Amino acid sequence: MSKIESRIHELGYALPSAPAPAGSYANCVRTGNLLFLAGGIPPIDDDTYLGKVPTDTSIETAQDAAREITLNRLAVIKDEIGDLDKVSRIVNVGGFVNSEPNFYQHPDVINGCSDLLVNIFGDKGIHSRTAMGASALPLNVSVEINMIIEIN
Amino acid sequence: MSKIESRIHELGYALPSAPAPAGSYANCVRTGNLLFLAGGIPPIDDDTYLGKVPTDTSIETAQDAAREITLNRLAVIKDEIGDLDKVSRIVNVGGFVNSEPNFYQHPDVINGCSDLLVNIFGDKGIHSRTAMGASALPLNVSVEINMIIEIN
Amino acid sequence: MSKIESRIHELGYALPSAPAPAGSYANCVRTGNLLFLAGGIPPIDDDTYLGKVPTDTSIETAQDAAREITLNRLAVIKDEIGDLDKVSRIVNVGGFVNSEPNFYQHPDVINGCSDLLVNIFGDKGIHSRTAMGASALPLNVSVEINMIIEIN
Repeated sequence: MSKIESRIHELGYALPSAPAPAGSYANCVRTGNLLFLAGGIPPIDDDTYLGKVPTDTSIETAQDAAREITLNRLAVIKDEIGDLDKVSRIVNVGGFVNSEPNFYQHPDVINGCSDLLVNIFGDKGIHSRTAMGASALPLNVSVEINMIIEIN
Repeated sequence: MSKIESRIHELGYALPSAPAPAGSYANCVRTGNLLFLAGGIPPIDDDTYLGKVPTDTSIETAQDAAREITLNRLAVIKDEIGDLDKVSRIVNVGGFVNSEPNFYQHPDVINGCSDLLVNIFGDKGIHSRTAMGASALPLNVSVEINMIIEIN
Repeated sequence: MSKIESRIHELGYALPSAPAPAGSYANCVRTGNLLFLAGGIPPIDDDTYLGKVPTDTSIETAQDAAREITLNRLAVIKDEIGDLDKVSRIVNVGGFVNSEPNFYQHPDVINGCSDLLVNIFGDKGIHSRTAMGASALPLNVSVEINMIIEIN
């Protein structure tokens, strides 16, 4: 098992299967040594990760959603390059919160992703980021996150 | 005529003129072998492609808007590099829908773009994508789409 | 003083200190000769740059916010590469306006950023751009802007 996957397990997490895209596109496209990842969504088996923050779902649950997305984005990267140890830098994160018009704590929600990336990858996990509120998100998920990744 | 333009005509479409930007910016900037395209909007000669989905305009009409934007983004690329056959990959698509807060079918709308790109470019047209709802869009258009393109 | 900083002063502006990120991320990450800048926000010492456009804050004040963000993004770039003269191109700008659902002049607001970039950098400042409305923004700021920069 790769160092990064060992670290994920050490933190008490596991990589899920990479989910199917929600439309006519791919989860990941490589150009040069960059991977552009599609906007990922959390599991929607039940309504845990659905709805607007903070009315339909709490900040804490939305942070969980952000962590779930982070793990499924890492699963996508592993599918693409075979080994997460080849990730040399998490370059950028775009974090979109299904947000009530008067909700202002988008950074707290997306920290669920950012903190996990730094815990997993260390300095290589420190990324630039844009967090914002969307008026609505696909399938009514509470959070959507895309990433740009640099690989060796 | 290039292979890609022949394919566009074969599908029953034609490249429009590249539209003027809606502000103090360029439609396209090249860095290395990547083109970063500005957020494109559909034609606004009449109100067909204006308003919020699905109240002011239907999903089907918003899909048409997404196709119109795709064609005008391709016109921008042709203006930049002279020949669409030089496109080696559609890397990324950002699709923004002027969305009512309770609309959740953004992927269906942006599939109007994604399906057309794959029909035109084949495997080179398969891209990563983020679709989301905007609270409002410039000039009240129903859809806005940006792209990152890799060229030879 | 670098040519670009001289130009900034000539225009009547000054670089602020680079602000701390609003979450668990970095203001800037370099990959190859590209810098990905985090979504920047305006100063929030008072409520000048807070709220929705155009109800809580005017278009003109939101343009000021866009200029303030532009200057603090340039401060971030200087911190990263030491000298703004090393910027070879402003590649892309993403401009997000804390927008009422019936506000459509996002391009006018983000022109506050775009016009300033072109005034400062000349042809190197001409960028591609996506402007859109967010349902809400972090800390209730009126405008958020991210950038992709090419350096020598």
